[in-house]
Amino acid sequence: MATPAVLVDVGRLDRNLHAMAASTARRGLALRPHVKTHKSIEIARCQLRQGAAGISVATLGEAETFAEAGLGEIFVAYPLWIDQERAPRLRALAGQVRLTAGVDSLASVHQLAAAVRRHAKLEVPVRVLVEVDCGLRRSGVAPADAGRVAVAAARAGLAVDGVFTFPGHSYAPGMPARAAADEAAALADAADSLAAAGLPCPVRSGGSTPSAAQAAGPGDGGPVTELRPGVYAYNDAQQVILGSCTLDEVALSVLATVVSTPAPDRFVLDAGAKVLGYDRPAWVPGHGLLPAFPEATVTGLWEHHAVAVTGAGPRPAVGDRVVVVPNHVCTVVNLVDELHVVRDGQVVERWPVDARGRNS
Amino acid sequence: MATPAVLVDVGRLDRNLHAMAASTARRGLALRPHVKTHKSIEIARCQLRQGAAGISVATLGEAETFAEAGLGEIFVAYPLWIDQERAPRLRALAGQVRLTAGVDSLASVHQLAAAVRRHAKLEVPVRVLVEVDCGLRRSGVAPADAGRVAVAAARAGLAVDGVFTFPGHSYAPGMPARAAADEAAALADAADSLAAAGLPCPVRSGGSTPSAAQAAGPGDGGPVTELRPGVYAYNDAQQVILGSCTLDEVALSVLATVVSTPAPDRFVLDAGAKVLGYDRPAWVPGHGLLPAFPEATVTGLWEHHAVAVTGAGPRPAVGDRVVVVPNHVCTVVNLVDELHVVRDGQVVERWPVDARGRNS
Repeated sequence: MATPAVLVDVGRLDRNLHAMAASTARRGLALRPHVKTHKSIEIARCQLRQGAAGISVATLGEAETFAEAGLGEIFVAYPLWIDQERAPRLRALAGQVRLTAGVDSLASVHQLAAAVRRHAKLEVPVRVLVEVDCGLRRSGVAPADAGRVAVAAARAGLAVDGVFTFPGHSYAPGMPARAAADEAAALADAADSLAAAGLPCPVRSGGSTPSAAQAAGPGDGGPVTELRPGVYAYNDAQQVILGSCTLDEVALSVLATVVSTPAPDRFVLDAGAKVLGYDRPAWVPGHGLLPAFPEATVTGLWEHHAVAVTGAGPRPAVGDRVVVVPNHVCTVVNLVDELHVVRDGQVVERWPVDARGRNS
Repeated sequence: MATPAVLVDVGRLDRNLHAMAASTARRGLALRPHVKTHKSIEIARCQLRQGAAGISVATLGEAETFAEAGLGEIFVAYPLWIDQERAPRLRALAGQVRLTAGVDSLASVHQLAAAVRRHAKLEVPVRVLVEVDCGLRRSGVAPADAGRVAVAAARAGLAVDGVFTFPGHSYAPGMPARAAADEAAALADAADSLAAAGLPCPVRSGGSTPSAAQAAGPGDGGPVTELRPGVYAYNDAQQVILGSCTLDEVALSVLATVVSTPAPDRFVLDAGAKVLGYDRPAWVPGHGLLPAFPEATVTGLWEHHAVAVTGAGPRPAVGDRVVVVPNHVCTVVNLVDELHVVRDGQVVERWPVDARGRNS
């Protein structure tokens, strides 16, 4: 196997999938995993076999990949803008699967409704969830405005199932609990806003991997009805640092070769940003973790070089192979065409990254 | 065309290629452009037609893509470690093209020589350039050690053509001139080191886009004989900020759609990190430039969202299309399978990214 190569430990993957399925089921939460993390038909099917209610995707392109593979329940968790190019694709998808679209503005509601209306033969209606912001300050309306958008969607003939939010401010040390509380408050307020407008709100969807364990679902008397975590399938260095998992629960890694040892305290790996990604929030100490060299830090990253300093630990030799746990697994998966699947220490299979690059 | 889409302005691309070809020729410098930027057979051929001496690549996989397309002169500008998997590939390449490999250690020299020796029928020898560090502190030996590595390579039967360095510390405001001076000093010292060992050093290869204009070549009585810039073909926000080019000389951009305007001073684009890349050195003010909204800053980036704040300028509406100049073009090109080629404002063609993902 040539390096850099992306390895998946299928035993760890299975355990991660089971753990989240069990944790959400125990709390009465539906699980609708975000498949942008793995982009893999094989893994999505596994999530569904373990009880997932459907899948979440970020783009129509991802939805198309999974719909073609026969997955029938897809939520595009994104504030969709259905322009001329996307309208026929949306209609085709809506005829193929039970499709739910995210909206966060009156303009996007009207575009979506117009796209659906232009297709007389459409038998399966497009369902919508209104996106609300719970503190990330990315997309989504204020929870109190959710009713206004939902009413517009209902009047335009769309089936409104409820609301969704992404508590992405969970991605910082000490923040997961607060983000989960913000998520619960925003979803409750948004449901109230729909109720005030005379609309039910059966789906109150939240979830990120760092905040998932603290999401307030039915089992805890909370308002959240479903979660959409993605990263938990593989985990990564960010999740280790945030405390969402241990290093032994990381199921994806990058195998690299030491290509240079230019100084006594420095070594260079052939896994650069074109496989590891440049993702590095300020609270992450380097460009990935090196489990076999815990005192080393990857201080520099270029397209095809990772430079590590040894700290007080040893330095590998030129030609040695070193495992890197990447900071953000979603980026890594999207950079490669195939994954080397490892079981009991042996590469047993290769999996394609089915939806790689499906950005639009 | 669905957004996000990567657009190439072919008029600007042509001008950029011509300008670098003319600038290097005028100064007596050979040009061996690094094709990891564009990964495009079409553009590499254009560079050769305009007088490039060959191409530089980062990996054997990139070399294979371009060799299969008939390009005959390839330098793998990387400290190669020729393991069991790579040895047959290297031999195949060496039988197909005039191949030059980078080395920066005795171990890598011995591996390379062993890989070549195991193939009795090899008619075209593998040539080598010794990598020296000129201040980036990435890979490369100290210039004074170049002779030692070169002697080992010559004794092992490899043809030593000279030395190379990458003045990548040019990537910071105010640094291009200093990096060019460091490059010249390191290449001169390295050539002296080879001379002291009785070896000629006809190739003294340097070059990065920010430092290229200040490289000290024959025309200026300097030691540099060739340059390997890559980014200049397209340019990007980093080059604009460093002063290597103007905004009008950026030939690649990302077309995005405004999908949300959640606050009066904020808008959200559908071009996220999976097309723009997370690359953002501390001296770059945002995640890409917005030429039509010069007062706006892209303050936040997620996989499928770019969040911009308007500053004192206007805010586009949901559904508007906005052009983003990405921070680092090499990352963008490697994230997509095809480019939309624009001439005189019209999309006239699509080009594949031939070597996308060829990381190993």
